Amino acid sequence: MTQTIAVIGLGAMGFAAAKRLHELGHTVTGCDIRPESIEAFKALGADATDDAKAAVADADTVILFVVNADQVDAILFDAGVLAATKPDTTLISMVTSAPSRAAATAKRVDAAQRMFLDAPVSGGVPGIEAGTLTIMVGANDRAFARAEPLLRQIGSNTFRVGAEPGQGSAMKTVNQLLAGVHIAAGAEALALAEKSGIDTGLALQILTSGAASSWMLENRGPRMIEPGDTVASAVEIFVKDLGIVLDTGRQERIGLPLSAAAHQQFLNASGVGLGAADDSQVVEVYRAMSKRGGES
Amino acid sequence: MTQTIAVIGLGAMGFAAAKRLHELGHTVTGCDIRPESIEAFKALGADATDDAKAAVADADTVILFVVNADQVDAILFDAGVLAATKPDTTLISMVTSAPSRAAATAKRVDAAQRMFLDAPVSGGVPGIEAGTLTIMVGANDRAFARAEPLLRQIGSNTFRVGAEPGQGSAMKTVNQLLAGVHIAAGAEALALAEKSGIDTGLALQILTSGAASSWMLENRGPRMIEPGDTVASAVEIFVKDLGIVLDTGRQERIGLPLSAAAHQQFLNASGVGLGAADDSQVVEVYRAMSKRGGES
Repeated sequence: MTQTIAVIGLGAMGFAAAKRLHELGHTVTGCDIRPESIEAFKALGADATDDAKAAVADADTVILFVVNADQVDAILFDAGVLAATKPDTTLISMVTSAPSRAAATAKRVDAAQRMFLDAPVSGGVPGIEAGTLTIMVGANDRAFARAEPLLRQIGSNTFRVGAEPGQGSAMKTVNQLLAGVHIAAGAEALALAEKSGIDTGLALQILTSGAASSWMLENRGPRMIEPGDTVASAVEIFVKDLGIVLDTGRQERIGLPLSAAAHQQFLNASGVGLGAADDSQVVEVYRAMSKRGGES
Repeated sequence: MTQTIAVIGLGAMGFAAAKRLHELGHTVTGCDIRPESIEAFKALGADATDDAKAAVADADTVILFVVNADQVDAILFDAGVLAATKPDTTLISMVTSAPSRAAATAKRVDAAQRMFLDAPVSGGVPGIEAGTLTIMVGANDRAFARAEPLLRQIGSNTFRVGAEPGQGSAMKTVNQLLAGVHIAAGAEALALAEKSGIDTGLALQILTSGAASSWMLENRGPRMIEPGDTVASAVEIFVKDLGIVLDTGRQERIGLPLSAAAHQQFLNASGVGLGAADDSQVVEVYRAMSKRGGES
């Protein structure tokens, strides 16, 4: 069953999602403030505009793929986009934000008689293109039942984490805790190997062959040793996402010492000018801090 | 080619190694101070004694599988066991110790015209029994050439990390850094999921299906949720091993903030009486520290 869908935010992820839904036969209008994104989406034979209120006017479903919770609220509330939707429109936020922010947005959307799904994702553009995205949903029964078929068209790994908006974001927060800590831990381990005079390629081979392995070590480890041009995800993403992890811990009253240490290392990486670099380059913080010295 | 071998230390690992070498046709003498270990090894039809000097007198190779570097030095030097070996005996230390300690022991063994291999292991009793143990070796060419065939009989994953004794221990140190940090990180993530009201079984399923996964999360995660009776490795092991990690960082002048945070959590676990519990139970520290409170 095809729908009329507005996708707000045509960055890498939003564009890929809008493209997939267009190709699956839905009537998709893309919306972004960047003219080049609008042109690129129009080039697929789909509609695109910089006018978000126009984009959502006929939509059954609005998918938000913007940068953060501030942008979500600015678009929906300050710019009047929520008021421009039809009553009972389904709004799906795939944005990574603090659980408390997603819950607060949901309350205001509910009050306006629209349906809100807190549905952040993991798996990147390849996940969307393959339809295998992991989607972590916090939404009430009615909203989830309405949106589920569409969600599964881009994310075969759609999990309903809870009935409360905010719980999808809480799950994404937990996911980012481990992703960020594992990258920083991999950097810490390889930097210690290097400083100990061990061949880091051999060290990586040994580490990934057993109990010390992680998905991130296998994926980012090679680029810690040999940087290259890939920017899978930037250092600044983990400055933001581990920031959300720590804000959540603060709110929930749970100390998260490993996350706090990892966050400092990503902040240090940004502080030495590596904010836009691949997140594997957090290893440079360890290298810069261990150039000299050593008792032995 | 069979050898005459002494295995000093018949704990779980040493016993398994001695048993395997005996079964492969070597002439093995096991040595331990505990009568029950001696009896158990004799029951296999092999020799065993509490007299280490007698055990090593005819040995071509002496394998040390004791608890730490202090025990290695006490046995070899203070108790006169090194002096009781034949000239040119090969000594293989499979003990987890600080790289500097392994290097110092090697120097004293060299000076006595015996050969020393720094060869700590990873993979546990199952690894020995299957012959697939990971062995990380720091040893000079002559010692490695002499010992390699024997090492490969218990460890098909034998890696020569460097020509210097101490480099095997350095590699093991790096391995334990990640192993320990990943356990504490898994506990931190699952505790945050729990505190956020997410079903931890579902959280573990989502986390292990993607970029947040680690070998330790898959292995220890289920026991963080449902403890059971398994003690794969005790909390005190990581109190010790992350202690070695931090001592090494201190010596090499490299800050290891994630390791430091993880070490504190294992110390806390020991401090609340969980030292002998399975290392997955470090999650109880997070639970104890987040029982109350929460702004939301």
